[in-house]
Amino acid sequence: MSVVWFNSEFLYDTLPLDPADRGLMLGDGLFETIAVAGGQAIWLNEHLARMATSAAELGISCDEADLRVSISKVLKRSSAAHEVLRITLTRGVTQRGLAADAHHSSLLMSLLPFDPAQQPQILTLATSKIRRNETAPSSQYKTLSYIDNVAAAREVKGKADDALMLNSSGHVACSTVGNVFYLKYDELVTPAVGHGILPGITRAKILENPSLKARQDFVTVDDLYTADAVFLTNSLRLVTPITKLDDKAIGTKSVQHIKDYLKGLAP
Amino acid sequence: MSVVWFNSEFLYDTLPLDPADRGLMLGDGLFETIAVAGGQAIWLNEHLARMATSAAELGISCDEADLRVSISKVLKRSSAAHEVLRITLTRGVTQRGLAADAHHSSLLMSLLPFDPAQQPQILTLATSKIRRNETAPSSQYKTLSYIDNVAAAREVKGKADDALMLNSSGHVACSTVGNVFYLKYDELVTPAVGHGILPGITRAKILENPSLKARQDFVTVDDLYTADAVFLTNSLRLVTPITKLDDKAIGTKSVQHIKDYLKGLAP
Repeated sequence: MSVVWFNSEFLYDTLPLDPADRGLMLGDGLFETIAVAGGQAIWLNEHLARMATSAAELGISCDEADLRVSISKVLKRSSAAHEVLRITLTRGVTQRGLAADAHHSSLLMSLLPFDPAQQPQILTLATSKIRRNETAPSSQYKTLSYIDNVAAAREVKGKADDALMLNSSGHVACSTVGNVFYLKYDELVTPAVGHGILPGITRAKILENPSLKARQDFVTVDDLYTADAVFLTNSLRLVTPITKLDDKAIGTKSVQHIKDYLKGLAP
Repeated sequence: MSVVWFNSEFLYDTLPLDPADRGLMLGDGLFETIAVAGGQAIWLNEHLARMATSAAELGISCDEADLRVSISKVLKRSSAAHEVLRITLTRGVTQRGLAADAHHSSLLMSLLPFDPAQQPQILTLATSKIRRNETAPSSQYKTLSYIDNVAAAREVKGKADDALMLNSSGHVACSTVGNVFYLKYDELVTPAVGHGILPGITRAKILENPSLKARQDFVTVDDLYTADAVFLTNSLRLVTPITKLDDKAIGTKSVQHIKDYLKGLAP
């Protein structure tokens, strides 16, 4: 069973979208994907803060108080132990012209069952030919303009579980669905904001945790090959060890070692 | 009066979209904007060929024969001398996962009045901080993932009519809504496919016309400042002279000179 919300009410059928809504016309909007456990949205404040900050940068209206009211109504219909809440916020409808302003944004939410036990326990990566663009909103914010990630994921389909994306200078940025960390000499390293990455919420939790000794720095492909361990983070899977990059093994430490190292991270 | 078509029928109300349609969720689709004069879509074959080629590259299903049938039904409702036909094709609905395949794409079309006489006769540009990404589908195809262009247009709003976008190597790529040409020594030069541009239809018509002596090459900002003339091309306005870049005048030839030079280009 899925729950869908549009603007100020529950939906039981298709979405009555204005055909000119810029979310559909121009990928002009933002989204968040939030883990829900026992009807509680995990790290909700952090997700909403990220959405509000990105919306302000892009000039999309985002009323956080209104959002919270809608989210609480949706979460009251939670019906599974584990679910995923997707929040989609578009700029709304404007006059012609890319720079035109909207009177109000459009809000779409869905709450879907999600089984953590069915998620992969390890991942393999293959490097995409598509680079992340450090100067572009589509690489800096979690926008609806996601086609470069879609194309990168399709490019490596059948070769690996996900694509590793480098940035325009050839440094490691991220995968299509998560941030990348490597562990070496008991220190964690991840590419910095500004290297073409989305500032992930799980990533921030690791960086904020002093016991994990994590820092942001330039990361090369060679750093990944010579690391003790490499893993991916995102809000749904938290931490997933990466065992291969372009068909070559990476990481000498066991998956259990990574899990033990990151113990205490779970919300 | 506007005409709207969705999948296989005319719409008279909101769009009954599946809330999981990837056009809205991930900017995962393509569009074309086509000038219509006297009920005839201008350069329709070229627009459909571009959409079909891009769809094939991205793995989006695009049945050109079906598209033509739908377009002819929409154009029968033409009611103004000049209109704009927008074709939006999304990947459709898939299972979870960026690389998932769809059973069929979604087609949305609108036909709206468009007054060529109200379009600007000249344009000013300001350089955006957002670069075009030569490696990315969002810079190579006319995709729904358009937020980088939206942000660039908003960045220069109030300073100029449109944003000039450079690519990752600092060469000139295009504006947010058109291709860029410069005229020097009776020769036209425009950035090449592969420099982070969309392969515009008007651009192709100029390159194919032997009497215009047009070629593709690397273009620098200095080339624009030292040119005899600079202009923008797109399907709705065809050719619009650019008179200023970052508040400095460009082009020594008159607007009339550019218009005379390109005489015979109109379809």
